[in-house]
Amino acid sequence: MYLHDIPLDEAKATFINALTTAGLKRILFKEYVPLNEKVVGRILAAPVYAKISSPHYHAAAMDGFAVKAESTNEAQPTMPKQLDLGDKNQAIMETIYVDTGDPIPQGFNAVIPIENTEPLTANRETSTDIRNPRYIRIRSGVPPWSNIRPLGEDIVATQLLFPAGHIVRPIDIGAIAAAGHTRIRVARKPRVAIIPTGSELVEIGSKLLPGAIIEFNSLILASMVNEWGGKARRYPITRDIFSEICERVIEASQDNDLILLNAGSSAGSEDFSAAVVEKFGKLLVHGIAIRPGHPVILGMLDGVMLEEQASKRSDPIKVKEKKWIPIIGVPGYPVSATLINELFVEPLLALWTGRLPMERPRELARITHKITSPPGNDDFIRVALGEVNNHLLAIPLSRGAGVISSLVQADGLLQVPSGIPGIDSGQFVEISLLRSKELIKKTILCIGSHDLTLDLLSRFLSTRERRLTSINVGSQGGLVAINKGDAHLAGSHLLDTETGQYNLSYIRKYIHGKKINVYGFVDRDQGLIVKKGNPKNIKDLWDISRTDVFYINRQRGAGTRVLLDYMLGNLGLSAEKIQGYDNEEYTHLNVAAAIVSGRADCGLGIPSAAQALGLDFIPITQEKFQLIIPEENINQEILIPLFDILTSNEFKKEVERMPGYKTEELGKLICTI
Amino acid sequence: MYLHDIPLDEAKATFINALTTAGLKRILFKEYVPLNEKVVGRILAAPVYAKISSPHYHAAAMDGFAVKAESTNEAQPTMPKQLDLGDKNQAIMETIYVDTGDPIPQGFNAVIPIENTEPLTANRETSTDIRNPRYIRIRSGVPPWSNIRPLGEDIVATQLLFPAGHIVRPIDIGAIAAAGHTRIRVARKPRVAIIPTGSELVEIGSKLLPGAIIEFNSLILASMVNEWGGKARRYPITRDIFSEICERVIEASQDNDLILLNAGSSAGSEDFSAAVVEKFGKLLVHGIAIRPGHPVILGMLDGVMLEEQASKRSDPIKVKEKKWIPIIGVPGYPVSATLINELFVEPLLALWTGRLPMERPRELARITHKITSPPGNDDFIRVALGEVNNHLLAIPLSRGAGVISSLVQADGLLQVPSGIPGIDSGQFVEISLLRSKELIKKTILCIGSHDLTLDLLSRFLSTRERRLTSINVGSQGGLVAINKGDAHLAGSHLLDTETGQYNLSYIRKYIHGKKINVYGFVDRDQGLIVKKGNPKNIKDLWDISRTDVFYINRQRGAGTRVLLDYMLGNLGLSAEKIQGYDNEEYTHLNVAAAIVSGRADCGLGIPSAAQALGLDFIPITQEKFQLIIPEENINQEILIPLFDILTSNEFKKEVERMPGYKTEELGKLICTI
Repeated sequence: MYLHDIPLDEAKATFINALTTAGLKRILFKEYVPLNEKVVGRILAAPVYAKISSPHYHAAAMDGFAVKAESTNEAQPTMPKQLDLGDKNQAIMETIYVDTGDPIPQGFNAVIPIENTEPLTANRETSTDIRNPRYIRIRSGVPPWSNIRPLGEDIVATQLLFPAGHIVRPIDIGAIAAAGHTRIRVARKPRVAIIPTGSELVEIGSKLLPGAIIEFNSLILASMVNEWGGKARRYPITRDIFSEICERVIEASQDNDLILLNAGSSAGSEDFSAAVVEKFGKLLVHGIAIRPGHPVILGMLDGVMLEEQASKRSDPIKVKEKKWIPIIGVPGYPVSATLINELFVEPLLALWTGRLPMERPRELARITHKITSPPGNDDFIRVALGEVNNHLLAIPLSRGAGVISSLVQADGLLQVPSGIPGIDSGQFVEISLLRSKELIKKTILCIGSHDLTLDLLSRFLSTRERRLTSINVGSQGGLVAINKGDAHLAGSHLLDTETGQYNLSYIRKYIHGKKINVYGFVDRDQGLIVKKGNPKNIKDLWDISRTDVFYINRQRGAGTRVLLDYMLGNLGLSAEKIQGYDNEEYTHLNVAAAIVSGRADCGLGIPSAAQALGLDFIPITQEKFQLIIPEENINQEILIPLFDILTSNEFKKEVERMPGYKTEELGKLICTI
Repeated sequence: MYLHDIPLDEAKATFINALTTAGLKRILFKEYVPLNEKVVGRILAAPVYAKISSPHYHAAAMDGFAVKAESTNEAQPTMPKQLDLGDKNQAIMETIYVDTGDPIPQGFNAVIPIENTEPLTANRETSTDIRNPRYIRIRSGVPPWSNIRPLGEDIVATQLLFPAGHIVRPIDIGAIAAAGHTRIRVARKPRVAIIPTGSELVEIGSKLLPGAIIEFNSLILASMVNEWGGKARRYPITRDIFSEICERVIEASQDNDLILLNAGSSAGSEDFSAAVVEKFGKLLVHGIAIRPGHPVILGMLDGVMLEEQASKRSDPIKVKEKKWIPIIGVPGYPVSATLINELFVEPLLALWTGRLPMERPRELARITHKITSPPGNDDFIRVALGEVNNHLLAIPLSRGAGVISSLVQADGLLQVPSGIPGIDSGQFVEISLLRSKELIKKTILCIGSHDLTLDLLSRFLSTRERRLTSINVGSQGGLVAINKGDAHLAGSHLLDTETGQYNLSYIRKYIHGKKINVYGFVDRDQGLIVKKGNPKNIKDLWDISRTDVFYINRQRGAGTRVLLDYMLGNLGLSAEKIQGYDNEEYTHLNVAAAIVSGRADCGLGIPSAAQALGLDFIPITQEKFQLIIPEENINQEILIPLFDILTSNEFKKEVERMPGYKTEELGKLICTI
């Protein structure tokens, strides 16, 4: 039932060896394509040499008069020389007008720019027809080949323009055309079959029953393959039935160079990928010591066996003459699937098209939170990135293989090699960038408490060349981050129960050695989020200790948790009496989700979260959600749009449209500590 | 006749103002597109919120048994508890088997992983049916919600996934699908008409007469537009006839949001773009103080006037209800055309699709050669880049607006603002990268003398994850570059006329303070390249001083020039007697091109250049072309593939297939100085 995971390097080597043996470690096919817009991104399968020179003739480099340079020698400012343009009957012309780009007429070897000539009429008087006079007068000579772009000045025929493997860019099309080509030889796009398998899968747009999973991995995998220069074909969803998967693989083997079998690659009762690979070929690898994504299959299908099977069908299909077809069993969780695609399919496409493997830019970044890594595994961790005070920071994101939101949030990927048990916070690590450095530099890192108005702020910032990355670690976590210099700002709503003030005593406790500005953001209601119609008839905090009421809590360090504990203390209610007190969620929306889905009956939170999911809300109190910003960040360019928005009427109005918010202090400097 | 160039910033502001007035400074159109592979690269025109949660139900996070957590409390290692799976007739089940991803059945709230359970038969004996026993025995309890992915764990319905302006990546499609969408709202691709004008233009593949220019600008411009998220349409070549250009503009105005009129944007006799713009609308800008690319036109066509004209046609066409259509007169030289496209069209497409303007990565680099910049102009200079000893170096490339080879060679773009007259060599400047930093780090910089075997070396290196950038500045220039640390290696063939040795005395003269290794490369013939059949009957160097013979020379500092001067001295021949001695070319191929095109009768050079262009060759002497490499570079990773190739049989054989080369010393260390 368990896989025997082998190291990543070993798996790669095994795969490459099998490809070599099968004669597949090379450009797969080559083809000619006509030179047009569509060739952008195609990969040259042969070097491109110039067929013709550019210019392909001696061309005038300026508007002016073509001359024999020797005949201009004696011209001087005080002793001008006149050159005859000839008339139609005259055989010999001493000069002739040329526009820029015109060929230099036979017998001429220089151009005098029009502005250095004086046009004359047939009577040798000043003419107004500057381009077509009868004579021109010149007052200085020119050396041979002046103002001429000689043949081959730019490109000489036979010259190497591009080596094989070059990826064609827009400007390259121009150079290749200028060099006389009408088509180019490129690597044919490798064809990749993507077969989603799983009885629980349904197509996008289907009615969703519990247990049904929307099939979108094939879209992700196919889009990645297409981006990498392959041609992906998605097959219909195949159920977890061995014979049906076999049929689909036979079908896909006809037209494709590589088959990706998505899910079923583990060793569970409904995981058939390994058996399918063994039936039709060689199972090379089953399990790789990486996290996430370890249940991977690497195999080679035997074309002969596939053809035999194909010919037995009621409608026999012909397998093209391929001896071996690589197949990869890709795990089902999306984070795993994309990682395996990147680790194995991208390099294979590079090999098959003759280009260099993709290499992401790398940057050193400081890790904000400790990472532990499973022993013996290469660990791939997605991180959010931001630059605070010229330090690039990497914030580890959720590591669940199924957490697709971590895929979209990720700005970078950190690989922790198998020998290393983890990385302490504050250490510098090399991160592969998933987003451009330029965009990362435009990122405002807000770490701390969560509020739905931060989403609104994100939308406003996106129109001002800024990106808001909001990491929800609770108010206290935010202050700790500010203390370490790990964020531009933090959202916080920590009530000092002794003074009734917000945040101040906590800032003094958690932040040392830097001046802090506290800005007003929103005053918001806090209360109990309950099911629609409040079926359990919950009226106040006393009710959460009822035996028929199940509570959902926020995590330790969250301002809402602090508030709850404070209010419980006031009421003299013990946490032990509250069923579900130990069940923690990290955001207001997740609390609301727990209630809407029946996991809990109620939880403390904000009305906008209740409204978002159609729940009811029982107001309990009001609190101040403030923005905590180190003074050293205040005048930095990155935050200018933030302050503009905080003090704008548009933002204020939008916040007020959401339930339970007051904006009296929005954008106001409350105090400096 | 001359343009009134205005500063770049002023031109941009004028254009933006006109767009604002015309109501065109916004996302142009929005459309819904179905969620599939094709949406990669599309730009969201509205924020994407989750419609459903993910998971959209409470899902088992492991294969195992769903239980009521409360009922497992008392289980202990020594006091196991048995849970009843029920039989078909039994209404109450205490536990039920679930696969990973299955919904948690109603009434259950935790999962015990299968590996922590013992299957039992109906007789309460050990069963082998681990998934479908009659009872399970457990030896420890689980807290509520253990091993369950609760609804919304990943994404909660109503949560903001992406703000407007986000460019869809492959993984985003998955997240959007998981969040319940079947389509997305995106900016419609702005439609851009590209009209090539010029009577000298011919289509790719046409027969080429002198003066004819292959029309490829429209392909470059269109490909760039498509890459930037627009939809380009190329129109047929239009002749330099005012009425024909007018007709074409009317035609293009029907379906397009922007018109690019390529060439004819200056103020020459056949430049009609400005007149066309004035006829149909407003000429906003004619001439911008930038080099290259100053003859630019920015204008706004009046939809009402266009419609009036269109309705007068014999086949009236309907102009869509647009009030204003921007038009840009793009200069004809390709380097200018691409620059103007990037400066004006890319930001416009960003505006019209709601995305951030493209921003190229920037790096500080040391300029290797002095740059002078025309006063009053923003100067855009293309550079080659390479990293030598961890210093990023920028080598200015040819600045001719027509030099398309500089476009394809360029790794970066340097903007010298109008106030700055130039940049001294050795200064650090910020370069916008046109190629990835990763590729630049794989670049071997070879500066110095030119030989055709360097092209061969480039081809070999391209298969070994290296790129050879070969800058031809002559042997002496190469040694100077090595002295300054401006290259990984230099090719040199400088004869010391006193000792008969190559390079050594020159290395001592030009390079100071670093140890140099001299490697053998090729022994090559040098001789006179003459026309096919040698019509002037040139036999030896004496003949180049004949009055009927025109010579083409190499530039000062080139090894071939040094060789010529040495041999002329031996013969007692004066340079003044040689016609064309002052005409310089920078490469052997350019010398051959001068001869093939009739510019000259002969020149000193190598037989491979003669052969390449089908010319004859008269051997005169032999010489050593060596590679000059600082010892500090020898062991660097970047050069490992170089040495592998230099000592390989494959490369040796390929060199020997070219005429006039001997390879006895190829890859051998000749000496260390």
